Amino acid sequence: MSAPGSFTPEIDPSTLRPVAQARILYADTDKMGIVYHAAYFRYLELTRVELIRGAGLPYTEMEDAGLALPLVEIGVRFASPGLYDDLITVHARLSLVTRVRAHFQYRVVVEPGDRLGLEQTVELLRAETRHCCVRRDTGRPERMSPLMFERLSAAQQRGAASS
Amino acid sequence: MSAPGSFTPEIDPSTLRPVAQARILYADTDKMGIVYHAAYFRYLELTRVELIRGAGLPYTEMEDAGLALPLVEIGVRFASPGLYDDLITVHARLSLVTRVRAHFQYRVVVEPGDRLGLEQTVELLRAETRHCCVRRDTGRPERMSPLMFERLSAAQQRGAASS
Amino acid sequence: MSAPGSFTPEIDPSTLRPVAQARILYADTDKMGIVYHAAYFRYLELTRVELIRGAGLPYTEMEDAGLALPLVEIGVRFASPGLYDDLITVHARLSLVTRVRAHFQYRVVVEPGDRLGLEQTVELLRAETRHCCVRRDTGRPERMSPLMFERLSAAQQRGAASS
Amino acid sequence: MSAPGSFTPEIDPSTLRPVAQARILYADTDKMGIVYHAAYFRYLELTRVELIRGAGLPYTEMEDAGLALPLVEIGVRFASPGLYDDLITVHARLSLVTRVRAHFQYRVVVEPGDRLGLEQTVELLRAETRHCCVRRDTGRPERMSPLMFERLSAAQQRGAASS
Repeated sequence: MSAPGSFTPEIDPSTLRPVAQARILYADTDKMGIVYHAAYFRYLELTRVELIRGAGLPYTEMEDAGLALPLVEIGVRFASPGLYDDLITVHARLSLVTRVRAHFQYRVVVEPGDRLGLEQTVELLRAETRHCCVRRDTGRPERMSPLMFERLSAAQQRGAASS
Repeated sequence: MSAPGSFTPEIDPSTLRPVAQARILYADTDKMGIVYHAAYFRYLELTRVELIRGAGLPYTEMEDAGLALPLVEIGVRFASPGLYDDLITVHARLSLVTRVRAHFQYRVVVEPGDRLGLEQTVELLRAETRHCCVRRDTGRPERMSPLMFERLSAAQQRGAASS
Repeated sequence: MSAPGSFTPEIDPSTLRPVAQARILYADTDKMGIVYHAAYFRYLELTRVELIRGAGLPYTEMEDAGLALPLVEIGVRFASPGLYDDLITVHARLSLVTRVRAHFQYRVVVEPGDRLGLEQTVELLRAETRHCCVRRDTGRPERMSPLMFERLSAAQQRGAASS
Repeated sequence: MSAPGSFTPEIDPSTLRPVAQARILYADTDKMGIVYHAAYFRYLELTRVELIRGAGLPYTEMEDAGLALPLVEIGVRFASPGLYDDLITVHARLSLVTRVRAHFQYRVVVEPGDRLGLEQTVELLRAETRHCCVRRDTGRPERMSPLMFERLSAAQQRGAASS
């Protein structure tokens, strides 16, 4: 039997900042009455897109340069169930940037006032997604342009500095 | 900078067996022309359900006993992109069973003949999902009944034996 | 051969008002490079929820009263494809309210400035969803309370008046 | 107030034949404990794809010819809620085929034996989707090749004949 490692990302919450908010819909829930696990991934994408856009690098600009950032690895640790009508806040940061890789860390929470009767912040999950830079036409690894790398790196540094 | 660990599950493919098949739909793809990462999770659920059913423990029976098996951790490593109209095969096994936990491992592949022009098996991803047993009404951890545990354990052993 | 009727809802755009906005994600697109038709339904739900909340009737309050508003009929006419990164605006109104029914009309558009290079508003679709009021426990039709009906009716009137 | 027409497709069940089956997952349900309305659309796509493939026209072949069949109109009437673990059967037919259009009709049912304790067939919904043939690169209407049209027409006739 393999000794199971952990898929829980090593995240220091103080290094993340709030990037996106969203309201949980019926579409996100399942018959257990809570958010279906896979429904969170679109909120992580939304967060990633806004984080990159905030770095001055809209994803559409990467596309125009013939590049894409597909997912290579995912690690998620679920802490508490999300509920219908929760207003979730996704805290995030770029945790690693190289010319060929970008890692994002996320922490999804519900704040008091964003769920009826909630008195203290509840953490729904922590996640990390790891992406590599590829050419869109071939799917093969490709280095970002110096300008793209510079912008993402600056965003990563700003995130690190603000913590 | 945190030294990033790996979210790639430690899977020995020879210990898995084919459990489910599915045809990739437009609904599963994104504008990169490949399967959107989150679309795989429903195929993993489908596989999990069939694996448990095959163990003589339909998930509805767990529900009737007031129990649920929510996800606690996910680790995924994407290897190659899935394509529209691929007939995917999900190989899987129960990799750990205790009275309060169940771990599943998965390997999603496309076999020659299941994608036009494909000459050898291509691996799309490896994943592991970790679940804990809880009471449905309170969400609190709860031990499975001896009978449930016995059936899942037997299924786990059979899987191990067949490898 | 049946003479095919039309599923295009009879909508007067001047009677609708903007209720919700959302950014199109990769999650919403398919390999044709456009928004997958079924992806719009979660944006319609988002709109419905905000419209009802704006009427002073959060959906959670209906639930607490033991009621639900499941869908009975859907009519959609697609006009133009939605694109990745579009900022869509959903215009909507309550078009019919009785003690046991509620109809919603929607028009999804992209405004100039919300898609690169777009110079005039483009309409993506028109839709109408029809719902009936049921008891959550039995699924059987049930009349809304006078207070609920009053609030929805007032919202419907306000919508009509503002046009 | 507009006199509301009906979005219920005019379907004669005796003209449809069973095309696809699928097991309802947690992924498909919502907190009402039933299938979320938008979850059915992927099962309709699955059905459409199999119906066309059965006509000797795999959708990938249309794509290779530079064509696509995007949705233009949808009409759905929901009859009864689908439940978790239901094995649904989708009956369908091509109800109209021209060089530039194709209409599909669907009836989704659960048969006795495919839901615990079910004693007679229950109808979940009736739907019709209307598609037009377009060029993939421009999105503009385009006529199918005579061969494609012939195959779809033959499939439509066979469906009509078998009723």
